[in-house]
Amino acid sequence: MQTLSPELLVQDVAIDFGDRSYRIAIGTSLLNNPDTYADLPRATCAVIVTNTTVGPLYRDALATALSAHYPQIHTVVLPDGEAHKTWQTLNLIFDALLENTCDRHTVLFALGGGVVGDMTGFAAASYMRGVPFVQVPTTLLAQVDSSVGGKTAINHPLGKNMIGAFYQPALVVCDIATLASLPARELSAGLAEVIKYGPINDLAFLDWIEGNLDALRSGDRVALAYAVKRSCEIKAWVVSQDERESGLRAILNFGHTFGHAIESGMGYGTWLHGEAVGCGMVMAARLSERLGLIEPSFVQRLTQLIANAGLPTVGPQLGAARYLDLMRIDKKSEGGQIKFVVIDQPGSASVRKAPDALVAEVIEQSCQPDTAV
Amino acid sequence: MQTLSPELLVQDVAIDFGDRSYRIAIGTSLLNNPDTYADLPRATCAVIVTNTTVGPLYRDALATALSAHYPQIHTVVLPDGEAHKTWQTLNLIFDALLENTCDRHTVLFALGGGVVGDMTGFAAASYMRGVPFVQVPTTLLAQVDSSVGGKTAINHPLGKNMIGAFYQPALVVCDIATLASLPARELSAGLAEVIKYGPINDLAFLDWIEGNLDALRSGDRVALAYAVKRSCEIKAWVVSQDERESGLRAILNFGHTFGHAIESGMGYGTWLHGEAVGCGMVMAARLSERLGLIEPSFVQRLTQLIANAGLPTVGPQLGAARYLDLMRIDKKSEGGQIKFVVIDQPGSASVRKAPDALVAEVIEQSCQPDTAV
Repeated sequence: MQTLSPELLVQDVAIDFGDRSYRIAIGTSLLNNPDTYADLPRATCAVIVTNTTVGPLYRDALATALSAHYPQIHTVVLPDGEAHKTWQTLNLIFDALLENTCDRHTVLFALGGGVVGDMTGFAAASYMRGVPFVQVPTTLLAQVDSSVGGKTAINHPLGKNMIGAFYQPALVVCDIATLASLPARELSAGLAEVIKYGPINDLAFLDWIEGNLDALRSGDRVALAYAVKRSCEIKAWVVSQDERESGLRAILNFGHTFGHAIESGMGYGTWLHGEAVGCGMVMAARLSERLGLIEPSFVQRLTQLIANAGLPTVGPQLGAARYLDLMRIDKKSEGGQIKFVVIDQPGSASVRKAPDALVAEVIEQSCQPDTAV
Repeated sequence: MQTLSPELLVQDVAIDFGDRSYRIAIGTSLLNNPDTYADLPRATCAVIVTNTTVGPLYRDALATALSAHYPQIHTVVLPDGEAHKTWQTLNLIFDALLENTCDRHTVLFALGGGVVGDMTGFAAASYMRGVPFVQVPTTLLAQVDSSVGGKTAINHPLGKNMIGAFYQPALVVCDIATLASLPARELSAGLAEVIKYGPINDLAFLDWIEGNLDALRSGDRVALAYAVKRSCEIKAWVVSQDERESGLRAILNFGHTFGHAIESGMGYGTWLHGEAVGCGMVMAARLSERLGLIEPSFVQRLTQLIANAGLPTVGPQLGAARYLDLMRIDKKSEGGQIKFVVIDQPGSASVRKAPDALVAEVIEQSCQPDTAV
């Protein structure tokens, strides 16, 4: 694969929400470039929300770039990790905004991964009933999935992402250079959400991922930029059709019903979100097979790719009953009936119910060590 | 004033938000009538959110009426009072929703005054990123103001209503019969928001209030129904022009900038919101006079009406500096500059800045016992 100059990597994906449309800027040398932020709303204050891991790496560069546009720049540093995606941590943002007398024109910048983005977005949706915010995702998972589409939330002890808002950012800045600082485990977790777009929407992209997995895992910027761009294109198309997930958008949760049960059952932060989704996709593919929708060979192909991406394919042994209980409080459930995203045929997904007994079989099969690839 | 049959009191005010439009039903025998709720979205669960004061009076009647439409009815009883409009209390609602496995079709019913309505509305806006909700206001203040227009919020220790959402209800049910159970102090507090509509928008309504104040204070249903209807008509018109308060809607905050400072400075719940607004309107009218906008005679007229409504017209002696500090975190402030709603001429209001020294003079004057009517 040829090496491109950083400038050639810069490209935009547009996302259409009428008068709330915005762009996803993808490339290198974006985060630290004042021009990136030139079209944002003006305000007295910009507030950077980040965490203890990402803050030391990029906070100063972002603040310097923003200082071209905002007279005051404040920073809120949150503890790192899914276990902190709580009311208590969210309140740290509100405390800082009010202690600094930030008015309702203040622009928030989410600098970090999915947890920082989800919490900053919900804080922006709620502070004074809504201030603008910008996503500056620094993990692959956040660049390809969570920073795009306006889902914001915090967790509740009884369920993941149960409290939040649909609230669109004013801009998403995917600086591929930040992925260089990502631990291998986090990069793999991000690949789970990249892989997801293949079976639900784009088999040609699935082929491409298989052919470029080594480049992606080794941090090749050109490969990563393409993976981010194609993922954002698919996500932008889906969410612009169905912002509030009354239908189509739910397919983006492929693997997430099982995955959320793993995360919640193990305690948030034990498995990374992308790891739980990777394993959840194996389960959801097996369920699709049991329902007679796809061939075993496609399940095997997907399982192999997930394993090759460095992700778990065997679930934790929580017991089928516990999985089912945890999945019943999934947001897609209706009247206690769990709904699953299944593969109708390779490259196409839909949402449907499934008999508890069949789901339990899939879980038991998927949590046995001998089912590993 | 003639006595009308309860049926004749029933009337609707429509509020236009495009595909989020809804109606405000005003009358008697509404709360306990299943027909009132016939057009709402169907769901497995309805959840009544109320407080320890209102719950024992009306919860059973509402639950009986709703049982015609919803198989499961759950109830969350919050502690009563502005001091409980916090994260901690809000979480009681989320806890109950999740413990009862309520799905994202669940309809919430806010049964109570402004605090219950504001918190239930924000819970509905945030639970699973948004479920439908219905306002069933049982105080005059909530019927004429807070239940209409979609402002929802909780307080932060550093400011009132700082965390919330613009989120419209599916229906507002103003049952005038519930006002019979209202303590005189609460009725007076509600009258503050009724009176407000006169100086900012409708001098004929101000005349009517002056002529019917005794009937209103004695609980006359016909007078109260008209006051609720006219107040809702004005509010509906204003907020449908400017849902998110980028301009016109701010005039509805007449008296609230000073009033919020009183509430916050005294500790939430010491003064009722309506009492603080009543006194705040006196201050805002005096400021309008000092700015050369209105005659002293109009200030005197408004002050007299506020006093006759049973509301305070002399502010607590917090000191002008403290008032100014508290007002600087008002949501209308920009870059530390306080913005005030002033009367341009009787029946018309606008938002503007004012010199700190002038505001301090108004505060000092308004907090001296000898300025009482």
